[in-house]
Amino acid sequence: MEKDNLKIKNLKKEVILIFKKFGLKKSHALISSNALINAELVGAYGHGLSRLKMYCDRLKKKVINPKPKIKIRRISQSISLVDANDSIGFVAADIAIKQAIKNAKKTGIGMVAVKKSGHYGLSGYYAEQAVKKNLITMIYTNAPPAVAPHGSLKSLFGTNPICFGTPTGSKVPFILDTSISMINRGKIRFAEKNNQKIPVGVALDKFGKPTTNAKKALEGVQLPIANFKGSGLAWMVDILSGVLTGGNHAGRVKDPFDDFSGPQNIGHLFITFKTNLFVNNYNKRIKDNINKIKRLPKIKGVKEIVYPGQNKYKRFIMNSKKEIKISKIIKKDLELLKR
Amino acid sequence: MEKDNLKIKNLKKEVILIFKKFGLKKSHALISSNALINAELVGAYGHGLSRLKMYCDRLKKKVINPKPKIKIRRISQSISLVDANDSIGFVAADIAIKQAIKNAKKTGIGMVAVKKSGHYGLSGYYAEQAVKKNLITMIYTNAPPAVAPHGSLKSLFGTNPICFGTPTGSKVPFILDTSISMINRGKIRFAEKNNQKIPVGVALDKFGKPTTNAKKALEGVQLPIANFKGSGLAWMVDILSGVLTGGNHAGRVKDPFDDFSGPQNIGHLFITFKTNLFVNNYNKRIKDNINKIKRLPKIKGVKEIVYPGQNKYKRFIMNSKKEIKISKIIKKDLELLKR
Repeated sequence: MEKDNLKIKNLKKEVILIFKKFGLKKSHALISSNALINAELVGAYGHGLSRLKMYCDRLKKKVINPKPKIKIRRISQSISLVDANDSIGFVAADIAIKQAIKNAKKTGIGMVAVKKSGHYGLSGYYAEQAVKKNLITMIYTNAPPAVAPHGSLKSLFGTNPICFGTPTGSKVPFILDTSISMINRGKIRFAEKNNQKIPVGVALDKFGKPTTNAKKALEGVQLPIANFKGSGLAWMVDILSGVLTGGNHAGRVKDPFDDFSGPQNIGHLFITFKTNLFVNNYNKRIKDNINKIKRLPKIKGVKEIVYPGQNKYKRFIMNSKKEIKISKIIKKDLELLKR
Repeated sequence: MEKDNLKIKNLKKEVILIFKKFGLKKSHALISSNALINAELVGAYGHGLSRLKMYCDRLKKKVINPKPKIKIRRISQSISLVDANDSIGFVAADIAIKQAIKNAKKTGIGMVAVKKSGHYGLSGYYAEQAVKKNLITMIYTNAPPAVAPHGSLKSLFGTNPICFGTPTGSKVPFILDTSISMINRGKIRFAEKNNQKIPVGVALDKFGKPTTNAKKALEGVQLPIANFKGSGLAWMVDILSGVLTGGNHAGRVKDPFDDFSGPQNIGHLFITFKTNLFVNNYNKRIKDNINKIKRLPKIKGVKEIVYPGQNKYKRFIMNSKKEIKISKIIKKDLELLKR
């Protein structure tokens, strides 16, 4: 993120100006712009600029609080609660991961819950912050209804990602950031916005029929991975990030694109801990772990066994040297928002 | 577990005697017998009596240490490390979950790592202990190679379960205990032992071909859920329970049935925390969460949307009133072990 080229720098500045125009203070606009541009650079376009207009619309209608009074409550040396006062999710998550890092550095383990937050983009983006400080991290957040609980005909769980990050003893962190749905909702939104089809088997329309139409999928139900297993994992994430924290849960998180009747009150949970709690050679151990796995015999056509986060890192490095490609629709968004 | 009927009580006693005969002291034999019989009662037969002979064989060959000197090291008020000294896994896990409960009660959050342990049966069995003490818990353990990392042709990850438990405000706990493979290895072992077929799509033989033959599946590769997602989750569990703890990892955990060349040195990680850290009405919130989900419209033929652990609890109550059915093969095991 440090060595952006000029064109990316200018784009970031542009997004900062837009966020400021919609009421964010400079530091919050900077955090939010960095997160959005990072999503573009790692290739997670569904969490990138395609969401900018949505954030601005919510700020305008005050269902994101542009001037939040965010409170951090100390529960113990290890544990904190952030009441984000309906801030933009990026800012709430940034404060929370920094507090979780602080707590872990002090006591070995940090746990920070967040309530009254909103969509914060990629969990992996915050995991990276902890990993850079040589901590392991586990991050949970819920999201608007997208996935039907096993046995049910109606969406209720969000795509509720499970995120895990660890240092690897190399500069490329291990960042697993996997939604519990067959496909990320952001990818379906991106497909809808760009008139693309979605794969077979990832979603049903509102009548319960399989569909490859992104719009119909958004109106319908996304399928969880591995049936009751994925459904159970999504339920776990809803409990950890919603029930536990004081955030919304059980399908009450509003869709940020469609529902402007109030704030989302999303909950997040950040757990961080030191790598050397139980062994004094963690970096050596994890290097050995990764090397052993990379050396396994490969399926025909597979060049390299990659660990989670490796491809994203590669894309980030590559894309940071280029110009960010902006679709016509998003270009139009940017023009309208700047006016 | 409290109200066992006479026949189950007698079976428990029989198993205790067998474990004692193979060198375990009385308290360890009791813990181990309880865990095995519990697996039978919840219907997890692959973790029940079908494993008794294996445990005894390993005790006899001293690759399970019958008289371990288990050490608990205090890392902080919240964090402990158990060096299980190659004890039978049940005992290591029992000590660890009790320590994790103690730590969480004292500080809000407990984290206990275990190294030099062995197969401990069902993670959910230990999760239940924490939940009964009104704590939330997350449990990770690795296991012998069974699942191929994504892109690889060779098994390396265990079926590496992810376990999560929480009180529900009712007597039936929410216990998610889900392996990262399409099917539990225990179920394949059970199928092999009883000459049953396994479902299509859960395993490949050693040549990489799909198979429904349990024996061939055990020689081959089990498939992870959701391809790279499941592979990533299995990798996470290997890191949390193996790399972090000082236990074996990266495929070095020996198969308890086939490899008597040394102890398994399995690692486990137990995380526990209070439900009321961030809200003062957790039980009300989780009840509301579960009720909301249970009231969703159901798929045709589905009578009830169940939460993880509910069916297991039902089976436990039902089976506790009956006699445990013992297959011919296991009856023979019992007879031989008693001699």
